[in-house]
Amino acid sequence: MDYAQESLKRHYQWKGKLEVNSKVSVNNKEDLSLAYTPGVAQPCLEIQKDISKSYELTGRWNTVAVISDGTAVLGLGDIGPEASMPVMEGKCVLFKEFGDVDAIPLCIRSKDVDEIVQVISLLAGSFGGVNLEDIAAPRCFEIEKRLKEICDIPIFHDDQHGTAVVTLAAVLNAAKLTGKDIKTMKVVMNGAGSAGIAIAKLLLQVGVSDITMCDRVGIIYDGQEGLTPDKQEIAKVTNKAGTKGRLADAMKDADVFIGVSAPGTVTPEMVLSMKKDPILFPMANPIPEIMPDLALKAGAAVVGTGRSDFANQINNVLAFPGIFRGALDVRASDINDAMKIAAAYAIAGLVTDNELRSDFIIPNAFDPRIKDAVAKAVAKAAKGSGVSRI
Amino acid sequence: MDYAQESLKRHYQWKGKLEVNSKVSVNNKEDLSLAYTPGVAQPCLEIQKDISKSYELTGRWNTVAVISDGTAVLGLGDIGPEASMPVMEGKCVLFKEFGDVDAIPLCIRSKDVDEIVQVISLLAGSFGGVNLEDIAAPRCFEIEKRLKEICDIPIFHDDQHGTAVVTLAAVLNAAKLTGKDIKTMKVVMNGAGSAGIAIAKLLLQVGVSDITMCDRVGIIYDGQEGLTPDKQEIAKVTNKAGTKGRLADAMKDADVFIGVSAPGTVTPEMVLSMKKDPILFPMANPIPEIMPDLALKAGAAVVGTGRSDFANQINNVLAFPGIFRGALDVRASDINDAMKIAAAYAIAGLVTDNELRSDFIIPNAFDPRIKDAVAKAVAKAAKGSGVSRI
Repeated sequence: MDYAQESLKRHYQWKGKLEVNSKVSVNNKEDLSLAYTPGVAQPCLEIQKDISKSYELTGRWNTVAVISDGTAVLGLGDIGPEASMPVMEGKCVLFKEFGDVDAIPLCIRSKDVDEIVQVISLLAGSFGGVNLEDIAAPRCFEIEKRLKEICDIPIFHDDQHGTAVVTLAAVLNAAKLTGKDIKTMKVVMNGAGSAGIAIAKLLLQVGVSDITMCDRVGIIYDGQEGLTPDKQEIAKVTNKAGTKGRLADAMKDADVFIGVSAPGTVTPEMVLSMKKDPILFPMANPIPEIMPDLALKAGAAVVGTGRSDFANQINNVLAFPGIFRGALDVRASDINDAMKIAAAYAIAGLVTDNELRSDFIIPNAFDPRIKDAVAKAVAKAAKGSGVSRI
Repeated sequence: MDYAQESLKRHYQWKGKLEVNSKVSVNNKEDLSLAYTPGVAQPCLEIQKDISKSYELTGRWNTVAVISDGTAVLGLGDIGPEASMPVMEGKCVLFKEFGDVDAIPLCIRSKDVDEIVQVISLLAGSFGGVNLEDIAAPRCFEIEKRLKEICDIPIFHDDQHGTAVVTLAAVLNAAKLTGKDIKTMKVVMNGAGSAGIAIAKLLLQVGVSDITMCDRVGIIYDGQEGLTPDKQEIAKVTNKAGTKGRLADAMKDADVFIGVSAPGTVTPEMVLSMKKDPILFPMANPIPEIMPDLALKAGAAVVGTGRSDFANQINNVLAFPGIFRGALDVRASDINDAMKIAAAYAIAGLVTDNELRSDFIIPNAFDPRIKDAVAKAVAKAAKGSGVSRI
């Protein structure tokens, strides 16, 4: 199927993929007096006395805003706020279908960090959480950091953390399958944008100690000139040997390759230079860093991509609906590392040792157990880490 | 029924009066590829080429944001943004039930004009229109004025203009019933807040020439010291004789009284001092400036209030759903005076000469003809005044 043209045709038919419906019927004056004036004054007054009641008397407990500035939409780049809305609506569809969350798509006509932070922080009383989406690096780091400091609700940039959670789940199971120890295995990453840096940070959190990151210039090292602040920060905690060189140099004797970069940047020769049973996650979309058949032919033990037409799809939809479901269920004030790691282990845990195979290391996106498994683990981690509010 | 306690009970049961639903089912990878990646890239690119396509390929054509800062909620005053949300959700319910509009409730944690203007203007690409709600005067005037200048979508403060439209409809039919000429009749208003000033301006637009406004201090006159800018402006075009005094002085020989002020401010003596067949709209909520039975006993020919338990309820729900329906239907860039006046005449016109009685001067809120009648008139006026975009 020509997904582009068929999707366009459907979008013209759909005229929007969401609808806002009333849960309350208003058929007569009495209905009106209860859902609206004069009766509605009473729930207003209850919230005025205790703002936390907004989670009980309005839809806030189940509402997430999906917000973009339209600067890093899919692989399309900076296409503008209005043009990002089909993606934001799609994300809201997935929030509902996979997480039973009421999600509202919003786009912001600004690329200014201060303005974006202000808009979102001033709206935070309307929602139970905010999913930032498709905001370009390095702006996204600053925006998320400042919002997490200011806001009393979870702020989650899915392009960073959703990707990191699902990648971690895949790494955990691939390591288990190949008998590699995550604490000692050598991980090479290509791409140090928002997703790459988030993946590296989460891997470090669970004990992966040997990570080498590359960008377009080559291996990133501490003290390298011209690094952005976020790359400087990650350089301090990766590549401890201070290696310099190109991606091909980094790949030698690596156990795991994780790509969030560009099509075709990995060659079969690089795969051949890796350790025994190499694990490859070339996730560039839509064309991976190396096509799975080429990687497997060159000796890869496990290959996962971002695509639904190959085995082992590293798909954010495995994570974000359940993560927000769990966060909302305990009225979490934040989505922290403990919750992200819990989500990754929950996703990985849905593949039993008996089922685990090189072409089945993470569950299918449509596995009906995912939402509850992830939500439960995330809620527990929220309680354990002190960010639960019920 | 104790509406307050029953409404509170229902709000605890409802846990939010809205839900965001997907119009698209996502049951397999193909569905996912069309509603989301990779297919969704194509509608994004179409909008990037032509932003007006956002009205065809997303829900923007039918989406209105209902936005408050929580400073003038119902008769409760400044109760805070979160506490305003039961009202905003209720308004969104009415938008759907009475106008088939998808409405999103948002509250802003700021009382600063610049900040509120910035938040809303930067979000304007997400919506087809904005309904401002329950924002205190005089801030609401400045916010609306600046947003109307900046934004390419309709900005409509319902507390001002919705009230003005329905009041005008009531005035038109009450004048018809009592044989008064709107061009020469004497109108006295008590209350010069956001609703009062909007009503006066709209009455002036349709040819009412003799309006005297009062506030807590008394009759407002041109040159009066200590007037806010909005009162100064209205003083220049009302009370042309430059009368000074109290409300009771203004009421002498008046044909029409319109109250958007405080309970019990009008006495039977004042009604007795009015011209023959006086028309009274004491709309203070929940307790009117004078109770209808008292006014009628003192000789009132027509009485209308804001309450649903008396005849002739001046209810905004008669106006805003159809006004936005009409504006959205022609992708209007503004809701201007021509559209508001058209809405008022459309509402008034639903009461036929045969039906017109002192206790039936405006249609019932549940009259199923209202939405289409108002929307059609508003859309036509939008085209006639050059703000339609299709």
